[in-house]
Amino acid sequence: MSRCVSKMEAYLDNSSTTKVLPLVKDIMVKCMEEDWGNPSAMHTKGVDAEGYVRAAREKIAATLKCSFSEIIFTSGGTESNNMAIIGTALAKRRQGKHIITTKIEHPSVGNVMKFLEGEGFEVSYLSVDKEGRIDLEELKSLIREDTILVSVMQVNNEVGAVEPIEEIGKIVKEKNPDCTFHVDAIQSYGKFIIRPKKAKIDLLSVSAHKIGGPKGVGFIYIKEKTKLNPIIFGGGQQDNMRSGTENVPGIAGLGVAAEEAYKDFDKKSEAFYALKENLEDKLSALEGVIINSPKGKEGAPHIVSASFKDIRSEVMLHALEEMGVFVSAGSACSSHKRAPSATLSSIGVDKSLLESTVRFSLNPYNTKEEIDYAVDKVSEVLEKYRKFTRK
Amino acid sequence: MSRCVSKMEAYLDNSSTTKVLPLVKDIMVKCMEEDWGNPSAMHTKGVDAEGYVRAAREKIAATLKCSFSEIIFTSGGTESNNMAIIGTALAKRRQGKHIITTKIEHPSVGNVMKFLEGEGFEVSYLSVDKEGRIDLEELKSLIREDTILVSVMQVNNEVGAVEPIEEIGKIVKEKNPDCTFHVDAIQSYGKFIIRPKKAKIDLLSVSAHKIGGPKGVGFIYIKEKTKLNPIIFGGGQQDNMRSGTENVPGIAGLGVAAEEAYKDFDKKSEAFYALKENLEDKLSALEGVIINSPKGKEGAPHIVSASFKDIRSEVMLHALEEMGVFVSAGSACSSHKRAPSATLSSIGVDKSLLESTVRFSLNPYNTKEEIDYAVDKVSEVLEKYRKFTRK
Repeated sequence: MSRCVSKMEAYLDNSSTTKVLPLVKDIMVKCMEEDWGNPSAMHTKGVDAEGYVRAAREKIAATLKCSFSEIIFTSGGTESNNMAIIGTALAKRRQGKHIITTKIEHPSVGNVMKFLEGEGFEVSYLSVDKEGRIDLEELKSLIREDTILVSVMQVNNEVGAVEPIEEIGKIVKEKNPDCTFHVDAIQSYGKFIIRPKKAKIDLLSVSAHKIGGPKGVGFIYIKEKTKLNPIIFGGGQQDNMRSGTENVPGIAGLGVAAEEAYKDFDKKSEAFYALKENLEDKLSALEGVIINSPKGKEGAPHIVSASFKDIRSEVMLHALEEMGVFVSAGSACSSHKRAPSATLSSIGVDKSLLESTVRFSLNPYNTKEEIDYAVDKVSEVLEKYRKFTRK
Repeated sequence: MSRCVSKMEAYLDNSSTTKVLPLVKDIMVKCMEEDWGNPSAMHTKGVDAEGYVRAAREKIAATLKCSFSEIIFTSGGTESNNMAIIGTALAKRRQGKHIITTKIEHPSVGNVMKFLEGEGFEVSYLSVDKEGRIDLEELKSLIREDTILVSVMQVNNEVGAVEPIEEIGKIVKEKNPDCTFHVDAIQSYGKFIIRPKKAKIDLLSVSAHKIGGPKGVGFIYIKEKTKLNPIIFGGGQQDNMRSGTENVPGIAGLGVAAEEAYKDFDKKSEAFYALKENLEDKLSALEGVIINSPKGKEGAPHIVSASFKDIRSEVMLHALEEMGVFVSAGSACSSHKRAPSATLSSIGVDKSLLESTVRFSLNPYNTKEEIDYAVDKVSEVLEKYRKFTRK
């Protein structure tokens, strides 16, 4: 169905979604053609299906160095974030109603906070500096006895800012050991080594389709003994934490994607940063281009946000796609709402550039040729459109 | 991975889950290999992915004779039921806190009711007769001005009892036009022609994996203008009713499964009932076998619940699976909780038979040979085990 006529293609919208890995697709097909039982069934077809769920849980636990029983599967990152926040609120509302988060969270955190504010919770929003980092002193000053939850994303989806989660975890538990610490790792899992125990994380959200897994599945890490209520009720699957027949093909696919994401991790990470730095350097060299993301290893390996003076995001995006380069305007997490980005404002991007910003997001399978091709095309678009605006 | 050694196989656990149809698997693979974009992305890869979501919505709307904008995709039947009930409670709690349901609902309704009772809602549970049908007079007497929701399953998952949803809808709206009417159609969609408008249904829950679609996806029909809040918050996808990147392969698969379920419907339905009646007749002819399901067309076409005097469900189930016959003990919606069945008690099954009950559930692709083979094997098991108990 692709209507792209260009020969070369550079898909640089991987923070929006990634192509499903062939190994992932293979195991999913196997779970649909051969081992398609209901994991709750008592006969062998159920037992066989359950085996895929357990295997996926073990693969994921190995990537986080946690127990397999601490992994609960959900329908994706959005549900994981909702479950972490609403589930904590339900479990701890008699203990306190104060929650701390940041001003640059994804809507699947931000809009849950708005919902809880309507339910009588008090939410404090941390500011960030121009690198997108929260102020640890501000955090320290805000944690109270009745603070039941601190929710911080590890990697921001729009600019790739990285929050110091180990330092945050330390502060949270020092100030209030009963406070739950939730990390939205949807953009960081597979890109960073994450050790929930070391970072004192109680809850961690992950989505499959950002790492070569299928859409419609994700997981939440729930540290043993964390006070958390389910938000979906029913047949009691997954230890009563998430009812509903398990999405066996999706879960099996996620298990494979997780394992792949951490295979040859150091090598992959180096390659990732090399691609990113190449992109950053070449974009910076163009006239009137401002990079909003933290430079190199100061930021995530896969996200470069750039603003193009006098050229609207949509113009750049559509001009690029004509030439086979796929990028995103803003976060692309919902095309139907185009409000000015809170993240870009929070890190101090000039108002005149908010609507002229494009996100390039990589995956480890992108090549240097693709990056160079994309920058070439950006340069062509700049030249063409600026000629008009200069007239 | 199947450890079954028998040559003939009769999978009669289709109410637990069905094998994915080849056409369903094909479109899912296409959505993973070729058209794997994020439907919210503004470029063509997003537009192409969005096309699959729209097509599925239109296919489903055609089966219900409703508008495509009345279909919202979820992660499955359990989420659909949760959304219908909790979403109504959130939207209408200032209007009233009384809800009516039945004593024989699936746990994805029953356990949501328990949650709401803990939140200060009052829930009335309708009794059923030995055919599993509610008493319409009792319903009439219970509907009050502050009744915000009536939730009734169309087909019971354990015995195949069928509730008269058109009559229920009429009564609900006559007694209280503001009361929302929700139908759990997870076991009935694809087995019955459903016309939400005619039956005055406001909300209807459906699961894909009960009709040859994939696990991890379902939908909820939401009649235009129905007061309903989302229960998952985020990027605002699906008209703000269900945030989260759409599970495009799953949704596309569900669309195909829905279309297939209603293709040649009358012919399929006749074949279904012929299979069921053959099974009922032959089981009834065996000694000490009691059929709990409503006979023939009094019940659903695909579920036969039978009790076997002096033989525990698990014994029958495992003995049958050794010979390639797959059935379920109870509802199999969660293997981890084996409480005595509320449905079987409610329809008056003798206490001594509650733990000796097995569910056979068919799909339109089962054959008469499979049914005959299964009954043969049941007969063998009865003979073998009763010989022991008689000693």
